[in-house]
Amino acid sequence: MDHLQLFNNIVQKKSFLCVGLDSEIEKIPSFLKKLKDPLFEFNKRIIDATHEYTVAYKPNVAFYESLGAEGWLSLEATVKYIRKKYPEMFIIADAKRGDIGNTSRLYAKGFLENMQFDAVTVAPYMGEDSVTPFISYTDKWAILLALTSNRGADDFQYHDEDGIKLFERVLTVSQKWGSVDNLMYVVGATRAEMLKDIRKIVPDHFLLIPGIGAQGGSLKEVAKYGMTNKCGLLVNSSRGIIFADNTESFAKVAGEKAREIQQEMECYLSERNLI
Amino acid sequence: MDHLQLFNNIVQKKSFLCVGLDSEIEKIPSFLKKLKDPLFEFNKRIIDATHEYTVAYKPNVAFYESLGAEGWLSLEATVKYIRKKYPEMFIIADAKRGDIGNTSRLYAKGFLENMQFDAVTVAPYMGEDSVTPFISYTDKWAILLALTSNRGADDFQYHDEDGIKLFERVLTVSQKWGSVDNLMYVVGATRAEMLKDIRKIVPDHFLLIPGIGAQGGSLKEVAKYGMTNKCGLLVNSSRGIIFADNTESFAKVAGEKAREIQQEMECYLSERNLI
Repeated sequence: MDHLQLFNNIVQKKSFLCVGLDSEIEKIPSFLKKLKDPLFEFNKRIIDATHEYTVAYKPNVAFYESLGAEGWLSLEATVKYIRKKYPEMFIIADAKRGDIGNTSRLYAKGFLENMQFDAVTVAPYMGEDSVTPFISYTDKWAILLALTSNRGADDFQYHDEDGIKLFERVLTVSQKWGSVDNLMYVVGATRAEMLKDIRKIVPDHFLLIPGIGAQGGSLKEVAKYGMTNKCGLLVNSSRGIIFADNTESFAKVAGEKAREIQQEMECYLSERNLI
Repeated sequence: MDHLQLFNNIVQKKSFLCVGLDSEIEKIPSFLKKLKDPLFEFNKRIIDATHEYTVAYKPNVAFYESLGAEGWLSLEATVKYIRKKYPEMFIIADAKRGDIGNTSRLYAKGFLENMQFDAVTVAPYMGEDSVTPFISYTDKWAILLALTSNRGADDFQYHDEDGIKLFERVLTVSQKWGSVDNLMYVVGATRAEMLKDIRKIVPDHFLLIPGIGAQGGSLKEVAKYGMTNKCGLLVNSSRGIIFADNTESFAKVAGEKAREIQQEMECYLSERNLI
């Protein structure tokens, strides 16, 4: 999928929502735990209930990997299910990988080739050769951490050389490695006010924005400061959707929550005459 | 395992070698591929042949994860085998993980609690809450990337705020999060000349040094500039040992290569009167 296809999907769905499948086994409704693959069964129901309102799914790999081989199978089954039933979806492995080139190549192969993800989130600390293996596949993306939504973002991401902060350097330098068709950046919604300046450095790239909902970020601010004439935004919500309810109605409630966000997004897209 | 126990193991083995189990399926001898779990069978033979000369093993998770659930089982089997047969070993998951606190907690649980690794390598970009979950377990370690051995290290790790480079800030700031008993740092052997200055910031912490052998770093330089009075070094070699030979003698040759390095290490430990 390229930049334009992603925008076309956003126009069609009237949504730039990404649903984060942070499916922590201890938080899913207990009646699912009797089934053979509870994590997959949970995801399947969430996906069926939310697919109309979203253009992307983003499983955070930690929630699967921490269960060992079994969790890995749940993750594979989830990606396969989405690929088959909703082929228009953009599927992101939120893995925050990154290693020396030779090794990053294997991470890229695992996620992008074997598991058929569209994109992988990548930590930029190790630089170019740790990132480029992820963008060596046609129509596949690396999503680089720039400014994250957590408290620890303050520790290193603002490290300032002659007025250029580390996250700004990540944005500037990495642009040379790829294009708007294979590079995207993570910018936390909890830092929405920063989006105005960030758009001066990356005017056209898609941004993946976590931190809406449970982490307190404002969708309105994100749209105001971050939206481009090709939308340029994927806004993620995880817990606020998938764990909104813990009863047998969890999927229905998740669908309602996703729909609420989609409707707000529709307004912002409409205000910008993108739909 | 704490700092002192690790040093005691180094004294006993007369070695500060860590064998990197970067066991790429396409590079292992073909006769092993007929067996049920070729990756584990390869590791088992390498471990049995090298254990006398090494204090640590470090599987790079990419080589297992890229094979999906099956690779994950090979990794689990490898750790279990080492734990049972060579309980004195320090076992490092070279995973380069790191996510917001809530999520890093799950990575930590997976590697340190479920899989029984002693340590996990962690990328520092997301700051404190992404790192501390790994050091919340007694006797377990986070090994933070400081200055890596790859070309891309130049892209961001030298970003300089008022004379303090990013990797130096990582060393300085992160020291407050833990102690010499649960924090270690990755410093590439290809940057051995930097070790003198790095030792001014972290005089006592153990350093995990990759880049010996295939990547061209010098063990002599590393020992000269990096060794403390508790050794303070784990020097990793991967391909130079495990892929030194590709015939039925591969394990024997790996053992010989490990022994060669151990003997050089014995000299350096002896010169410093540590053994």
